[in-house]
Amino acid sequence: MLLHGNAVVGQSGGPTAAINATLSGVIKGALEAKEQGIIGTLYGMRNGIEGFLKEDLVDLFDVFSNPDDLKTLEATPAAALGSCRRKLKSHEEDFDTYQRILKILKKHDIRYFFYIGGNDSMDTVLKLSRYAASHDYELRVVGVPKTIDNDLMATDHTPGFGSAAKFVATTVKEIIRDINVYTMDAVTIVEIMGRDAGWLTASAALASLSGEGPDLVYLPERIFDEQSFVDDVKARLKDHPAILVAVSEGVRFANGEYVGAGTQSGAVDVFGHKYLAGTGKVLESIIKNRIGCKVRSVELSLTQRCASHISSLTDITESVMVGKGAVKAATEGRTGVMMTIERLEGAEYSVRIGLADISCIANAIKTVPGEYINEEGNGITEDGVNYLGPLIEGELDLEYENGLPKHFVIK
Amino acid sequence: MLLHGNAVVGQSGGPTAAINATLSGVIKGALEAKEQGIIGTLYGMRNGIEGFLKEDLVDLFDVFSNPDDLKTLEATPAAALGSCRRKLKSHEEDFDTYQRILKILKKHDIRYFFYIGGNDSMDTVLKLSRYAASHDYELRVVGVPKTIDNDLMATDHTPGFGSAAKFVATTVKEIIRDINVYTMDAVTIVEIMGRDAGWLTASAALASLSGEGPDLVYLPERIFDEQSFVDDVKARLKDHPAILVAVSEGVRFANGEYVGAGTQSGAVDVFGHKYLAGTGKVLESIIKNRIGCKVRSVELSLTQRCASHISSLTDITESVMVGKGAVKAATEGRTGVMMTIERLEGAEYSVRIGLADISCIANAIKTVPGEYINEEGNGITEDGVNYLGPLIEGELDLEYENGLPKHFVIK
Repeated sequence: MLLHGNAVVGQSGGPTAAINATLSGVIKGALEAKEQGIIGTLYGMRNGIEGFLKEDLVDLFDVFSNPDDLKTLEATPAAALGSCRRKLKSHEEDFDTYQRILKILKKHDIRYFFYIGGNDSMDTVLKLSRYAASHDYELRVVGVPKTIDNDLMATDHTPGFGSAAKFVATTVKEIIRDINVYTMDAVTIVEIMGRDAGWLTASAALASLSGEGPDLVYLPERIFDEQSFVDDVKARLKDHPAILVAVSEGVRFANGEYVGAGTQSGAVDVFGHKYLAGTGKVLESIIKNRIGCKVRSVELSLTQRCASHISSLTDITESVMVGKGAVKAATEGRTGVMMTIERLEGAEYSVRIGLADISCIANAIKTVPGEYINEEGNGITEDGVNYLGPLIEGELDLEYENGLPKHFVIK
Repeated sequence: MLLHGNAVVGQSGGPTAAINATLSGVIKGALEAKEQGIIGTLYGMRNGIEGFLKEDLVDLFDVFSNPDDLKTLEATPAAALGSCRRKLKSHEEDFDTYQRILKILKKHDIRYFFYIGGNDSMDTVLKLSRYAASHDYELRVVGVPKTIDNDLMATDHTPGFGSAAKFVATTVKEIIRDINVYTMDAVTIVEIMGRDAGWLTASAALASLSGEGPDLVYLPERIFDEQSFVDDVKARLKDHPAILVAVSEGVRFANGEYVGAGTQSGAVDVFGHKYLAGTGKVLESIIKNRIGCKVRSVELSLTQRCASHISSLTDITESVMVGKGAVKAATEGRTGVMMTIERLEGAEYSVRIGLADISCIANAIKTVPGEYINEEGNGITEDGVNYLGPLIEGELDLEYENGLPKHFVIK
């Protein structure tokens, strides 16, 4: 049942190294659908739904009239269309906004709506698809996941995660080289992003696939106990002098308080999430006060989510695939769905692009399962490493100019 | 005048991405000298002069019996032989240590002593060469520079700087992509290493060679004035919402105090240098309190000195060259010298390996010259960018295993 019309795509939520690869996939898919006479043009909304509401649209077939630019786009971090943090209220609560959306959709004859984002963005997709369905406007809304946190349900892993994991594991491996040059006892704490799920912190353990890995890994899936931490570090220091601790920003004490909360203002982001940044510093002072050896903490901060210069080829390839897949699914009649990556059985890693009903996904979080965390709660099991390993495989053939990776910027 | 005997090489001071490339160069040079019948074997001292005093030596011709491993070594960050922070006292002050050194040199018939390090290591080279000369033991001592700080005299630039600069500029470029996805006013502060010289912070400006660069750059060569900083940021915010500030950890107020001192313990390292880490955080609170917009700070920390995965090919190539050059200079009779890189005149960047009398180098610091800093003291001039640009050109052909760059570890 063919639906003719235009399409629009937007990016939302925190940047990743792969969200533009998915945009490239949507553009490639839309170009094919155009050749088939299904899609007229593909608009990009600037700054996600915020820009859509302002009718700030750009014709992406114009912008990417030179197909070589798509390759550059795939190696460009963050969201080329801009992003936003706006989460739509329900249409009962915010009638005007939904009316405005519908008006703009009609005005531009938009029948396909692709939204690339994380958990909160999938919520927007869900609401929009329900609203359109209940207002007799045929619109196909497809969510395309991205998040470095890897915490979306129904998909084996999320686009953007593999590249962040590759940067984290590479950096941890390099820091292990760095701290091992001295002979005195020293603890180095690497704080890694991940508010509710420890996937990215777990990926620090991948350094062990090609040499030494981190000595200790603490995820938000386990309660953080100060005494156990001190005991763990002391035990490792008996064995060798340079200890590397990977810790998630989201670890909490038994009372439910974030470990990093002590040094934070308690500020909350627009989604009501507590804003964290001080976990490494708190662990640093625990070691300083209770063990007294040299200690430093390194917060990977923004760098871990935008380090396109060491993207995972597996991640970027799959990110393009889910983007293309979204267009295919929509033109075939699907709506209210999120694209997924299914890992296939077999000794060799391989995947198939799938999709899932978005109502089962939005607002739920997939945490690291018990079998990937060791009994002591301070390390990653072989099963965990085997799950993570294939996701960081391969490197992009990057274009450089003036010694720096080339980026594509939508003017 | 040929001097036959064995050679020893050590690494000292803070790690860089290129110090192992220089070690590889020394090994390559020593292998040639062995073929010429000059050098018997090349020992590596573990943990610099500390390990030498313990006679902790390894035969590097054995370790690198497979020449392919030298390529891997050149892409391995930090010091494969280990490092130390020990600075030799004068031999008048520490007679025993010098006697012990002489005894070990004689025992192993070591006539060539290569020491790869920064400013403090060159001081060791100077003292040792003077001591040997005054004790009738023919020893040729050659220093090979390395420092991400680029602050050594007599050389156009230092091995290790170009790779750190490439990582800094790449990361700043990626963070600029990242912060530009939102439309609200926001200031992002990137704190970069450099205690007394702003070379590495200045390299953030290289992002401007292929797109937007940082909005503001503050170096320790200029007094940091809080009011001017607030005025600078306000002025930039009038023009666009996402402001990137690159700041050196070593900036000071007019009263001579480090900006970062406010959040630090005032701890001092073994060389009496003040230990700093809080400059970005202090700037963050200035913006929060005086402008009130969203603000965050990112400290590049250890990652900037060990990011071999994005080494500069120019830097690594030159680092090997100075290592080889050191062996050549020594076998030709030079001692008490440091290898240098001379930039040749001409439109195309090219260099020649030279050397300088070490007494003119040790304990002196080369800061960023006035013509590389703009009049307002908040940016880098075109001359500065032209000086820095060639140093980050080119990429290594990295070996990967299990998705991560391969490292060579001396067991």
